[in-house]
Amino acid sequence: MEIRKPYLLFLGDAPDQLAAKTAAGVVDWRLDWCVGQMRLPGCQADVGLEDLDIAGAAAKGAKTFVIGVVNAGGVLPDHWIDAIVEAIEAGMDVASGLHARLGALPRVAEAAKTHGAQLHDVRHSTERFSTGKGVKRPGRRILTVGTDCSVGKKYAALALEAEMRARGLDADFRATGQTGVLIAGRGVAIDAVVADFIAGAAEWLTPAAAGDHWDVVEGQGSLFHPSFAGVTLGLLHGSQPDAFVVCHEPTRKTMRGVTHPLPSIAEVIEATVAAGKLTNPEIRCVGIAVNTAALGDAEARAVIDKTAAEHRVPTSDPVRFGMAPIVERLIAEFP
Amino acid sequence: MEIRKPYLLFLGDAPDQLAAKTAAGVVDWRLDWCVGQMRLPGCQADVGLEDLDIAGAAAKGAKTFVIGVVNAGGVLPDHWIDAIVEAIEAGMDVASGLHARLGALPRVAEAAKTHGAQLHDVRHSTERFSTGKGVKRPGRRILTVGTDCSVGKKYAALALEAEMRARGLDADFRATGQTGVLIAGRGVAIDAVVADFIAGAAEWLTPAAAGDHWDVVEGQGSLFHPSFAGVTLGLLHGSQPDAFVVCHEPTRKTMRGVTHPLPSIAEVIEATVAAGKLTNPEIRCVGIAVNTAALGDAEARAVIDKTAAEHRVPTSDPVRFGMAPIVERLIAEFP
Repeated sequence: MEIRKPYLLFLGDAPDQLAAKTAAGVVDWRLDWCVGQMRLPGCQADVGLEDLDIAGAAAKGAKTFVIGVVNAGGVLPDHWIDAIVEAIEAGMDVASGLHARLGALPRVAEAAKTHGAQLHDVRHSTERFSTGKGVKRPGRRILTVGTDCSVGKKYAALALEAEMRARGLDADFRATGQTGVLIAGRGVAIDAVVADFIAGAAEWLTPAAAGDHWDVVEGQGSLFHPSFAGVTLGLLHGSQPDAFVVCHEPTRKTMRGVTHPLPSIAEVIEATVAAGKLTNPEIRCVGIAVNTAALGDAEARAVIDKTAAEHRVPTSDPVRFGMAPIVERLIAEFP
Repeated sequence: MEIRKPYLLFLGDAPDQLAAKTAAGVVDWRLDWCVGQMRLPGCQADVGLEDLDIAGAAAKGAKTFVIGVVNAGGVLPDHWIDAIVEAIEAGMDVASGLHARLGALPRVAEAAKTHGAQLHDVRHSTERFSTGKGVKRPGRRILTVGTDCSVGKKYAALALEAEMRARGLDADFRATGQTGVLIAGRGVAIDAVVADFIAGAAEWLTPAAAGDHWDVVEGQGSLFHPSFAGVTLGLLHGSQPDAFVVCHEPTRKTMRGVTHPLPSIAEVIEATVAAGKLTNPEIRCVGIAVNTAALGDAEARAVIDKTAAEHRVPTSDPVRFGMAPIVERLIAEFP
C-alpha cells in the first residue's frame, strides 16, 4: 500500500525542531515529494519549506497530509483534528507514524469514510504476514546494522541508496521504521509486527527480484541491545543480506535507554556474520558508517581513518562525507 | 491474571487424539486441576477423565471451561458456541488458546457480560508490556532452549519443575506458549506479543524474586530457526537465565516447517551462551533433554549416553527417564 505523493508536511505546534524530526527526514531525502509545510500557532519547528494552509497545499496538488511531528506519548491531540479533517475534505489521504491510530478519532474516521480517503497508520501494518520461510531469494540485499539503536542506520541506508543510484545501480531503500516508511512511501514498522512474524515481514519487504537489483534495508536496534535484539535478529534472518554496513556513534558510552556498554564494532561484525549466515552463507561486512555529528571535522576524519585501518573496510560518515568508498567496495565485491 | 481452577476440559468433536493435545498436556501436568472432560458427538479423543456435561462439571465445582482442542485454522466453530455459552451461564470462565478471540463471538461476549465471566484468550495477552530493561534481577532462572521448534521444551521445563519441587526447591514453571499458559494458569504467549516487547514480556514473566527461587522458563523456537529466532533471542535476553537445558529430537533431519538442517547441540550451547551473557554473564548449560519418543528403549539409552559423553553434561529424556541427573547438576552448580 503506497502512500500517495506529493506530501503536505504537518508540523503542528512542535515545541522544538527535534519534535519535527520525521518531517525533517522526509525533506532531507525526498524534497521533491513535498509541496510545503503547515504549522499551527506556536510551532517552533521549521523544515525550510513554503508555509501552506490546506487550501494552498491542495491547489499545489498535495495528495497526502503527513503528520511530521511527534507528540509526547505518541497521541494525536485534539487541536490537530481540525487540520486533519480539513485535509481529508480537500481530497488528501493522511499518514501518521504515531502510536495512536488515526481511525480511532471518530471525526477523522467519519471524514475518511465520507471522502474515500486512505488513513495510513504506518506503525500499524494492515498487511497479514506469513512466518519466515528462510529460503534464499534472487536479488541482492544490503542491511545496515548497529552497535546501538539510534546511531544512524536509516540515514546510512538512504545515503547508500542515493550513492548506488548515482552510480547506475538498481537500488531501492526498504523502510523498517515509521519515519523510513514515510520517506519510502511504503514499508513496514518491523518492531510493531507480532513477534512470530518478524522474519516473515522482512521477507515480504525484500521479495525476490532481478539478480542485479539491490534492496537497501534500514536496520533496527542492535544484536547487542537487551531490549530489542529479537527484532534485529528477525530482520537479519528475513532480509538475508549479502552485505551489511555497521553503523556506530563513537561518543556514546552506554546503549540507548539501558546501562549496558556498547559492543565493539568487531563484536557486531562477528555476531552479524554468525547469525546472518543461517539464511545467507555469503554474508559479509562491506563498510562502517560512523555518525560523527558530535565531533569537529578533524576529529571526525581521525575517527574514521582509525576505524577503517582497524577493521580494514571502507569507513565514512554518510552525512558528512558520503558513501562513495563503501559503494565502491560493494561494486568490487558484487560485480 | 490467573485462570481460575479447577477446569472442565472441552474436547469438542476432536477428529483424533492429536487435536486434543492441549487438554492432554493439562492432564499430564495438572491432573488435580481437572474435574472432567466434555466431548461432543463424534469426538475421537479421550484424555482419560470422567465425561461430564456442563451441569455435572458445575456441580463438581468447575471454575473454567478450557477449550483443550485445536481446530483447523484456529477458529472457533459455530457448533461449539452452545457449550461455551452454557458454561458461562453455569458460572464458569472460559479459556482458549486458539487464534480466534472468544469475545469476537457475539453470543459469547454477551453471555460473559451478563454473567460477569472472564474470557481468557491466552494467545492474546491483555497485559501492556514495557520494553526490556536488561537489568539483572534477584532470583534464579532456568530456560529450556532447543535445536528446533517442537522438540519438547515445554515438557522439559515442566519435568524440571516437578523434579525441583520434589527435592524441596522453590520452583515455578513460567509459561510462554498457549498450552503452557493453560497448564500454569498464567503466563504469556510470547510469540504473540508485539516485536518491540519480546524481552520486556519475558522480564514481566520472570520478575525479581527471592534469591533461592527458581523460575523454570518454557523456551520457544530456536536461535537457529530462520522463522522464529527473534522470539527465541528476546526470550533469552528477557529471562536472563542462570542456567539452560538444551532440548533435542535426535531423529529429526530438517527444522520444522523449513528446509534448514538442525544445528548441532554444541552450536546451540555456544550460541546460547554468546547471546545470553548480554543479560547474564554467568549463564551456563546444565543439561541436555533428548526427546526419544521415536526410539526404542535400548536406542534411547544409547543416544542419551552418547550425548552425555560428547557434551559432558547430564543428559536425559524428561518423559522417559526423568530429570534427576540434570537437577542434581543444577543443585551442585547453584548450592
